[in-house]
Amino acid sequence: LAPEAAAKALTEVEPKVRRRLIAALPAERAADIVERMPPDEAADLLAALPQRQSDLLLEKMERDEAADVQQLLRYEPDTAGGMMTTEFVTLPAHLTAAEALERLRGLAREVELIYYIYLVDPAARLQGVVTIRHLLLFDPGARLEEIMRRDPVSVRPDDTPERVAEITEKYNLLAVPVLGPQGKLLGIVTVDDVLTHMTALAWKWKLGHAR
Amino acid sequence: LAPEAAAKALTEVEPKVRRRLIAALPAERAADIVERMPPDEAADLLAALPQRQSDLLLEKMERDEAADVQQLLRYEPDTAGGMMTTEFVTLPAHLTAAEALERLRGLAREVELIYYIYLVDPAARLQGVVTIRHLLLFDPGARLEEIMRRDPVSVRPDDTPERVAEITEKYNLLAVPVLGPQGKLLGIVTVDDVLTHMTALAWKWKLGHAR
Repeated sequence: LAPEAAAKALTEVEPKVRRRLIAALPAERAADIVERMPPDEAADLLAALPQRQSDLLLEKMERDEAADVQQLLRYEPDTAGGMMTTEFVTLPAHLTAAEALERLRGLAREVELIYYIYLVDPAARLQGVVTIRHLLLFDPGARLEEIMRRDPVSVRPDDTPERVAEITEKYNLLAVPVLGPQGKLLGIVTVDDVLTHMTALAWKWKLGHAR
Repeated sequence: LAPEAAAKALTEVEPKVRRRLIAALPAERAADIVERMPPDEAADLLAALPQRQSDLLLEKMERDEAADVQQLLRYEPDTAGGMMTTEFVTLPAHLTAAEALERLRGLAREVELIYYIYLVDPAARLQGVVTIRHLLLFDPGARLEEIMRRDPVSVRPDDTPERVAEITEKYNLLAVPVLGPQGKLLGIVTVDDVLTHMTALAWKWKLGHAR
């Protein structure tokens, strides 16, 4: 299997099987695969491996991918920071809607959530968000900064998963941005991860109840 | 408030407040507002009103909107049928990706979930689904029938909400199609409604546990 295909296949199997498969591979090959996984899933995987092994994999990964994953490893798994991915779309605010759609073509293969575009200032502070729905609704010549939703709702990295779920649900979002100090955009939590969390929580509470 | 704005405002308030507001309005005005709500929310609202009042509102609504809502009222609230909306995007399969994007411009204002396009045959049987991601990934001249994902995963109207959540989560979907006899597309359940359900369930189970 090519590393791309192996990474995709790995995200489909149970976490326990995933850990065993990665642990059984030579470190070089394992690193090739892990760096092709979505950063949030790669971080979850590395967090579950013995420290020595995850350090070795991080060392052998491409520097950019390793840095993303290392940043995510700083957060507790059961927080917004631990749930977020650092893979999101940002585009320059001066682009027009038509230009933005064109840029998205180039990103559609790589990025997990293509439907929301985040606009940040040079200091990485979140300025607004534009959805593909906006791109279609507005004149193709309109600039992103004109059509963006300003000051979108957001969460902080230490917010609880329940808080993330509450915000996502209340505003019917496909993703919620996670902001650090000075409003810097650190990552996004996508609705599928919120749903996974709430489903796990529901069953945990139900089983606790049944005991 | 114009009926459009009133309908939008109503979907933001608590279900209990919503029922009281609608009950307090003259029937003509209430019907004008209800027919502008997403069909699944309108059905939930009418199901919670006294029978005589919901019948009166259905009578005063535009015929198309009333028919959609009446169809939804046939399903138990706690089933896939009861969770689904009949508002979804279908386009002819012979359109190209570029033509489909153009058609979506006209629909972006009205439809709740613009990111998935469902392709049906003349008997309304679901043939496949195309996402906006696909539209961006493939050549603008490619036809929808060439790029669609065939036989997408689906649920049945009497499936439980937990089954809908399981499917949505497993395949990371933004919406899951609900198929009736002969594979006819009856509606879709969007991920925000799945999340709302799972969150409510989680709390119900937690509170049950705490009691």
